[in-house]
Amino acid sequence: MTNHTYRVTEIVGTSHEGVDQAIRNGIARAQQTLRNLDWFEVTQVRGQLEDGRIEHYQVGLKVGFRIEDTEQES
Amino acid sequence: MTNHTYRVTEIVGTSHEGVDQAIRNGIARAQQTLRNLDWFEVTQVRGQLEDGRIEHYQVGLKVGFRIEDTEQES
Amino acid sequence: MTNHTYRVTEIVGTSHEGVDQAIRNGIARAQQTLRNLDWFEVTQVRGQLEDGRIEHYQVGLKVGFRIEDTEQES
Amino acid sequence: MTNHTYRVTEIVGTSHEGVDQAIRNGIARAQQTLRNLDWFEVTQVRGQLEDGRIEHYQVGLKVGFRIEDTEQES
Amino acid sequence: MTNHTYRVTEIVGTSHEGVDQAIRNGIARAQQTLRNLDWFEVTQVRGQLEDGRIEHYQVGLKVGFRIEDTEQES
Amino acid sequence: MTNHTYRVTEIVGTSHEGVDQAIRNGIARAQQTLRNLDWFEVTQVRGQLEDGRIEHYQVGLKVGFRIEDTEQES
Amino acid sequence: MTNHTYRVTEIVGTSHEGVDQAIRNGIARAQQTLRNLDWFEVTQVRGQLEDGRIEHYQVGLKVGFRIEDTEQES
Amino acid sequence: MTNHTYRVTEIVGTSHEGVDQAIRNGIARAQQTLRNLDWFEVTQVRGQLEDGRIEHYQVGLKVGFRIEDTEQES
Amino acid sequence: MTNHTYRVTEIVGTSHEGVDQAIRNGIARAQQTLRNLDWFEVTQVRGQLEDGRIEHYQVGLKVGFRIEDTEQES
Amino acid sequence: MTNHTYRVTEIVGTSHEGVDQAIRNGIARAQQTLRNLDWFEVTQVRGQLEDGRIEHYQVGLKVGFRIEDTEQES
Amino acid sequence: MTNHTYRVTEIVGTSHEGVDQAIRNGIARAQQTLRNLDWFEVTQVRGQLEDGRIEHYQVGLKVGFRIEDTEQES
Amino acid sequence: MTNHTYRVTEIVGTSHEGVDQAIRNGIARAQQTLRNLDWFEVTQVRGQLEDGRIEHYQVGLKVGFRIEDTEQES
Repeated sequence: MTNHTYRVTEIVGTSHEGVDQAIRNGIARAQQTLRNLDWFEVTQVRGQLEDGRIEHYQVGLKVGFRIEDTEQES
Repeated sequence: MTNHTYRVTEIVGTSHEGVDQAIRNGIARAQQTLRNLDWFEVTQVRGQLEDGRIEHYQVGLKVGFRIEDTEQES
Repeated sequence: MTNHTYRVTEIVGTSHEGVDQAIRNGIARAQQTLRNLDWFEVTQVRGQLEDGRIEHYQVGLKVGFRIEDTEQES
Repeated sequence: MTNHTYRVTEIVGTSHEGVDQAIRNGIARAQQTLRNLDWFEVTQVRGQLEDGRIEHYQVGLKVGFRIEDTEQES
Repeated sequence: MTNHTYRVTEIVGTSHEGVDQAIRNGIARAQQTLRNLDWFEVTQVRGQLEDGRIEHYQVGLKVGFRIEDTEQES
Repeated sequence: MTNHTYRVTEIVGTSHEGVDQAIRNGIARAQQTLRNLDWFEVTQVRGQLEDGRIEHYQVGLKVGFRIEDTEQES
Repeated sequence: MTNHTYRVTEIVGTSHEGVDQAIRNGIARAQQTLRNLDWFEVTQVRGQLEDGRIEHYQVGLKVGFRIEDTEQES
Repeated sequence: MTNHTYRVTEIVGTSHEGVDQAIRNGIARAQQTLRNLDWFEVTQVRGQLEDGRIEHYQVGLKVGFRIEDTEQES
Repeated sequence: MTNHTYRVTEIVGTSHEGVDQAIRNGIARAQQTLRNLDWFEVTQVRGQLEDGRIEHYQVGLKVGFRIEDTEQES
Repeated sequence: MTNHTYRVTEIVGTSHEGVDQAIRNGIARAQQTLRNLDWFEVTQVRGQLEDGRIEHYQVGLKVGFRIEDTEQES
Repeated sequence: MTNHTYRVTEIVGTSHEGVDQAIRNGIARAQQTLRNLDWFEVTQVRGQLEDGRIEHYQVGLKVGFRIEDTEQES
Repeated sequence: MTNHTYRVTEIVGTSHEGVDQAIRNGIARAQQTLRNLDWFEVTQVRGQLEDGRIEHYQVGLKVGFRIEDTEQES
C-alpha cells in the first residue's frame, strides 16, 4: 500500500552544448511518456567527435519513477 | 525456438520491515504486470531515515523474465 | 530536435552453439519488437551445464535504440 | 541557502541475529551523535565465524546527514 | 609460524525463507567439511522465481578459514 | 615530518542549476569548517525530479585535506 | 534438505582457436574431477601473443556445482 | 579492409571554469597531434583546491581515434 | 551492548620510501587522534613524481575503529 | 636489465563476423606498428546495429608489449 | 592436450613486517600443497591494528596453477 | 594556456625483489623516453611463480605526464 515500487529505466540524453543540457534533454524526453519521475543517476558521460570538435555529448542516465498501483489503474 | 530470450527490468522494492520484505514487495508488484518471471538479483540496499529511525528499506532488483515468441502472441 | 534520446534495454540472448550466436539470437528477438536499434554492449557471459556439457550459452546484452519524437508518433 | 550540503559517514553495524538487525544497530548508534540523518546505503555484508557458527553479522553502511548552516552564514 | 595463511572458498547458500537463512545454510554446509572457519563475505544476492513467487534465495559467500600447518613444517 | 597525512571526507553538494554549481556549493560549505582543503573527486551525479523537472542536482564528492600536526608532536 | 549448497571454483580454460573453444576445454577438464556441474560465468578473456599471432586464448571461468549432502556420502 | 581498428588514448583536460570546459580543452589539445578523433568517454572528474576555492577542474578522458591503414597494406 | 559499532575513516598516508612506510605513517598519524583502531584496508596506491623520481608514495587507507558507548547509554 | 618493462596500449578491433575475428583483426593491425607483442586482455565487447542486424562487432583490447632497452635502440 | 587448464585458488597471506613478506608467506604456504604454481594476483591489502600499531598485514592473493592431465595422474 | 593537458600511459614494471622496486623500475624506464612525468597510480600487482618461488613481481602503473604546448600554439 504505502510500500511503493519504483521502476528504473536507462536512457542516453544528448546535447551539442554540454553535460547539464544533455541531462535536461534526456529527462525532458522521458517526461513525455513516463509519469511520476522521481530521481536520476548519471551512469556515464561520452561524446561523439567530428573534425576534432565535440559533435554530441552523450550522457547515460538511470531514471527512477514510481509505479502506480494497478488497482487504481483499472 | 528453444533458444529463449530473456528481458531484464530494474525495479526498487520498498518495505518498513526489512530487506527480505522489500524484495518480496518488489517481486509481488512486478508479478502484476509481467509474465514468466524467472530470477532476480539484488543491485543495492539503501534506506530512508526519519527522526533517526529507518522509514523505508529500498532494495534495487534486476528481474529477469522470459520473452514469449511473437508468433504465439499474435 | 536533432538531440536524439536513446533508450537502453537489457536482455539475455541464448544459444546451444556459442557466444556469437547467443548475441545474434538476442538481437534478432529484440528486433521483432523494437525499432531503430543502434548498438549493443555485452554485460556478461554465463552458461548452463548439464551432464558436464554446455547446455546453453547465456549472454547479457544492453541494447540501445533511438526513441522517436512523440510529435511524429501521434 | 536552500541548497543543502550533506555529509556521508561510513560505519559498520553488528548483530548476532542477522543483516536487518545489524543495520538497525548501526543506525541507532549513529543517531546518538549525529543530527539530521537522511539515508543509508549498504556497502558490504560480512560476518565473523566461531566454532562454525555466525558470531557476528557485520554490515558496512554509508550514512548521509544534512549539515546545518553554520552561524557565520546568518 | 604465527603468520597464519587463510584460504577463501566461494559457495552459494540457498533458502526458501530469506537472505539470513541462506547465509546460515551455506555456512552450516561448509562447516561439515572445513575446519577453522573464520569469516564470510556476501558477494551477491540472487533468487529463483516460480509462478511469480520467490522459490529460492541464493546468496553468494566467500568463506575464509585458517589453513593448519602441514606435518612437513614441524 | 614532511610526510603529511591527508583525510578524505565525503559530502554531497546540491544545486538547482547544474553539476558545476553543485560541486562549488559543496566545496564552499566544506570550506567553512575544514582547513587545508587540497583536492576533490566526484563519486556520483544524481538528481531529484519533481513534476518532470530537475529539482536538485546532487553531486557526491570526496574532499581531501591535509591534517595539521598535533601539538603533541612538537 | 532441499536447500542445496553450491561451490564455485575458478579455472582458466585455454585454446588455440577462440573464446568458445577455450570455454569448452575448461569445462571438459573440470568435468573430469567434479560432479554436478551446474553453471559457469566468464570472468575475463585474455591471450598470449607470440610473433604477433594469438598463441593461446585464456578464458577465466567461475564454475558452480552442487555439493552433495555428506550423509549420503558416508 | 573496412574493418577499421581504433586506438584509445587517455588524457586529463583541465579548466578553471568547469567540467564541460575541461573536456573541451583536453579534446582541443588532443586534436593538435591526433587525426581521425572519433569519440571520448569521461573516466573521472577531480579538482585541485587552493584557499578553499577550485583552482582547476581535472577531467580524465579516454579518446578513441581510427588508425589509418599503413602503407604496407596497400 | 556487545554489538559494537565501528566507524571507518579514510586517510592518505605518504612516504618518501615506499608503500609499507606510507601505510605506517598514515596509521601513526591516525593513532594520535583516534582510539580503538581495529583494522585498515588499502584503497589505492599513487605517487608524485618530480624530475623523473618518486617524490612521495601516497597510499589511500580506510581505517576502522570501534566507537565507545556514549554516557547516555549507561 | 632482466627486469623488463612493458607498455599497455588500448585498441578496438572490429569485424563483421564475430568476437574472435574482431580480436584477431585488432591484434593484426597492432602487429604492423608494435614489436614484442606479449599478451592481450578483452576490456569490452560492443557492436553497431543497422536495420536490426549486427553491422560491426567492436572488441576493446589492452595489448601489452615489452619495451626494448634504450641502450640497444641508440 | 597442449591446451592446459589452470585452477585459481584464493588465499590470504599474513606478515608482521609488510606487504611483500605477506605475499611471500602466502605463496610459501600454498607451495606446500599445490604443484605447478604459475602466477599470483593481489586482490586486496588489509591489516589488523592493536594498540595503534600494525599487528598483521593481510594480503589477499589469487594463485593460479596448472592442472595436470588426469590420465597422467592415474 | 595555463590549462595544461596531461597524458596517461599504462606500463608494467617488474622486479625480482618486491612491489616498491617494481614501481621504481617501471618509473625509471618511463623516464628514459617521457618528459614532465607528474604522477603514477598502481592498477594491479601480479607476479610470476617458478618452482614455487616468486620469479617476478609485475606492477601495473598508470603514469601521467604534462604535454608540452606545440609550436603551433605560439
